[in-house]
Amino acid sequence: MPPRRPASFVDVTDSPLDDALAFFLEIDRLKGVERRNFLADGSRRENTAEHSWHLGMAVMVFAQFANEPVDLATAIGMALVHDIVEIDAGDTFAYDQGADAASKEAREQAAADRLFGMLPPATGVHFRELWDRYERGECPESRLVMAVDRMAPMFLNMAEGGTTWREFGIGRKRVIDRNGRYVQAALPDVWTRAMSRLDAAVANGHIDE
Amino acid sequence: MPPRRPASFVDVTDSPLDDALAFFLEIDRLKGVERRNFLADGSRRENTAEHSWHLGMAVMVFAQFANEPVDLATAIGMALVHDIVEIDAGDTFAYDQGADAASKEAREQAAADRLFGMLPPATGVHFRELWDRYERGECPESRLVMAVDRMAPMFLNMAEGGTTWREFGIGRKRVIDRNGRYVQAALPDVWTRAMSRLDAAVANGHIDE
Repeated sequence: MPPRRPASFVDVTDSPLDDALAFFLEIDRLKGVERRNFLADGSRRENTAEHSWHLGMAVMVFAQFANEPVDLATAIGMALVHDIVEIDAGDTFAYDQGADAASKEAREQAAADRLFGMLPPATGVHFRELWDRYERGECPESRLVMAVDRMAPMFLNMAEGGTTWREFGIGRKRVIDRNGRYVQAALPDVWTRAMSRLDAAVANGHIDE
Repeated sequence: MPPRRPASFVDVTDSPLDDALAFFLEIDRLKGVERRNFLADGSRRENTAEHSWHLGMAVMVFAQFANEPVDLATAIGMALVHDIVEIDAGDTFAYDQGADAASKEAREQAAADRLFGMLPPATGVHFRELWDRYERGECPESRLVMAVDRMAPMFLNMAEGGTTWREFGIGRKRVIDRNGRYVQAALPDVWTRAMSRLDAAVANGHIDE
């Protein structure tokens, strides 16, 4: 999805506070980015802003079950910041293997340049570092955030009956292939619980084998 | 608004991880709590989960403009946690002075008991402390979160043209009376910017004097 506004729409000013306020209003648009999965009650699809809040909470709740220590402030900040690029780049479905997935990195890099570039420099560099660290996936904080980013839609899907998985023809094996390595690596006991619920969903006919 | 489920709906188990998972799915309901203000683009009203994400981001962006140092991890956690009680207690409009406002404290205390009581004990105590500290408003972190909690809907309202204020007959003076002491106390330069935009909104006829 191309940017909805040209990159020059918001000019950086000579006032750090005005830049911060412009960024604050710009990121409001994340509330309008729709994800594929539904809320736990099945009432509607989730948007990326509320998903990011849920991930920040998940970091605070599940860090105690992680298999390595994490710096909580870093991990929470990463959870809140890492999807902001979707304002320009859109959400790429975790199971997508087509053109969207192939162009994802370039679209998201351009989005990070534009959006974090709106901020006062020290803040922009800090957010860009959080985003880069998440993308690299090489530190304990990024491994935990990646795990909660994968477990969250899994548990929401299982809670509401697997609508999205059926809609896109995704069976048990693909769910495991796409999520297992992330969730199991950082939150092994959560993965065990996820597998029990996934098997129950197969038994109930909510998801294909 | 009464709780939508009896307090006994979710029983605490003898597994901290299962309790954490139950809490994680329970707080998904915050995405269904509607606030009065609209998004910046005027497309729909905001929900409390995405508002909480925006506040977490605001803490990270505006702490550098605060008039006292804050512990960032505490302030971000407070921003994410402090409105979770609205799952049972509903959102109370900042300008409400009727029965809802009068019963707000009792409803929110009961909600905090139930929701934070679902968690593994150490996590529940931590979240309850964040919530209590916010409610008391006596530490730098709570003053910053209160300020961003007031500035956020103000700037969203001003961005989309003041729909909510007109809808509820709220003029410039009431906006200042209800928000000034919080925003000005912690983020004085943000308040100066808010006042300029408010005066522009009055001049444009978007809000009454």
